[in-house]
Amino acid sequence: MMFEMQDGQFQLVYNILSFSLASMMSTTLFLWMRVPSISAKYQTALIISGLVTFIAAYHYIRIFNSWVEAYEYTKGSTDPKLTGVPFNDAYRYMDWLLTVPMLLMEIVLTMNLSGQEATSKCQTLGFSAALMIVLGYPGELIVEGPPLVFRWMYWALAMLPFVYIVYELLVGLSAATASESNEKVRALIFRAQWVTVLSWLTYPVVYIFPMLGFGGSSAVVAIQVGYCASDVISKCGVGLIIYSITAAKSELEKKGALLA
Amino acid sequence: MMFEMQDGQFQLVYNILSFSLASMMSTTLFLWMRVPSISAKYQTALIISGLVTFIAAYHYIRIFNSWVEAYEYTKGSTDPKLTGVPFNDAYRYMDWLLTVPMLLMEIVLTMNLSGQEATSKCQTLGFSAALMIVLGYPGELIVEGPPLVFRWMYWALAMLPFVYIVYELLVGLSAATASESNEKVRALIFRAQWVTVLSWLTYPVVYIFPMLGFGGSSAVVAIQVGYCASDVISKCGVGLIIYSITAAKSELEKKGALLA
Repeated sequence: MMFEMQDGQFQLVYNILSFSLASMMSTTLFLWMRVPSISAKYQTALIISGLVTFIAAYHYIRIFNSWVEAYEYTKGSTDPKLTGVPFNDAYRYMDWLLTVPMLLMEIVLTMNLSGQEATSKCQTLGFSAALMIVLGYPGELIVEGPPLVFRWMYWALAMLPFVYIVYELLVGLSAATASESNEKVRALIFRAQWVTVLSWLTYPVVYIFPMLGFGGSSAVVAIQVGYCASDVISKCGVGLIIYSITAAKSELEKKGALLA
Repeated sequence: MMFEMQDGQFQLVYNILSFSLASMMSTTLFLWMRVPSISAKYQTALIISGLVTFIAAYHYIRIFNSWVEAYEYTKGSTDPKLTGVPFNDAYRYMDWLLTVPMLLMEIVLTMNLSGQEATSKCQTLGFSAALMIVLGYPGELIVEGPPLVFRWMYWALAMLPFVYIVYELLVGLSAATASESNEKVRALIFRAQWVTVLSWLTYPVVYIFPMLGFGGSSAVVAIQVGYCASDVISKCGVGLIIYSITAAKSELEKKGALLA
């Protein structure tokens, strides 16, 4: 289902996809270049944070190219024309299937948990996240008309694991956050939990844009801008908070080792 | 032999090839970035695990591009048309010829074996794996009609080294697994052996899809989806288990060195 775009609409999506790509690439490089300076215990969390933005960068290259190939400018017209090549947005779901479980892992791995607790939390949260993406995908293909009732249905199904994940992040892991003795670290982990939850809350809202009366080309533009903004906050923003947590914890450990 | 694809079929293969590529690239980077934190003895196993996914990533770029070049979308039609450029699936065999012997090596190198035993196992398993790929390839080119009897013949020939490898993994190497004193390490090696065998068992099943009545475009889609899923499990999944084994063994060695 492809829609004609006005010049301004086409350019807006083009620019925001390019902006997201640049953000993902630069966050990846920053996170990975900081790995050697972090204490060994937290390096995995930092490497995974960089992998999340790396995988997202790959998919933004694909999404950007797909957008460019779907439209063409011709002489004598200001607005671009459809080329017949469909714009493939499924990349987002391929991306989320890989990155969303990893995003949860990077938060869990910076927390005060035993190896066994961390593994168990990573598994249940990772599985719930993958389930959420798989349940949401079929609805994403429905953008217009009476079948939108099915989009609501898939939305509701995907919301079940979503609510569980939000509950785990805010309540299930609160004991581990509270057990951090350093105030700065506690505040940073708290921030990572909340920024994740708040940025994630935008996805189910963007998902129902077509039911809120955004139709045709405006729906496409609104969805692209919305998902890009959420991605940059939940991947780059949270990744940089994860870096601050691991840096602060490494600093404390070094001080502890000097005093001992 | 090329088949017309419906839009949904083309996109499904397109997305799953891209997903596999992203999985291979990110697993490679993760494994290689973890090398410095592993004790010297197991670094080779980890580097080889990363090489397997690196080589697979290269071939998935080729397979993905070949798929895209074989079809084109034109104005006024939802389904893509054949361009005349054949879809080259032989890349998979080139990939397996390199990666399958290496996959067996990465498992052997994490086990409790003397240098000589490890070399000898690597050689016989590596040779059997290469033989299996070479015997399977001619049959892969036959997808329809009465010559399918030859596909069965090559399948049966390739199954001989295949059965030998499965036997070696589950029985021949069981003494080395049982000799691991640490329970966690033993469980992880056992898992690496079983995940490898179970994921490999899917290849001979996917191979006989054309004989099971999948014809034309459905056969192509089923084969691509099946091989991608098996590849992601046997390369990324097993690679990450290999990482867990080497990390656990390094940890134990560090503790042992501190106590000594």
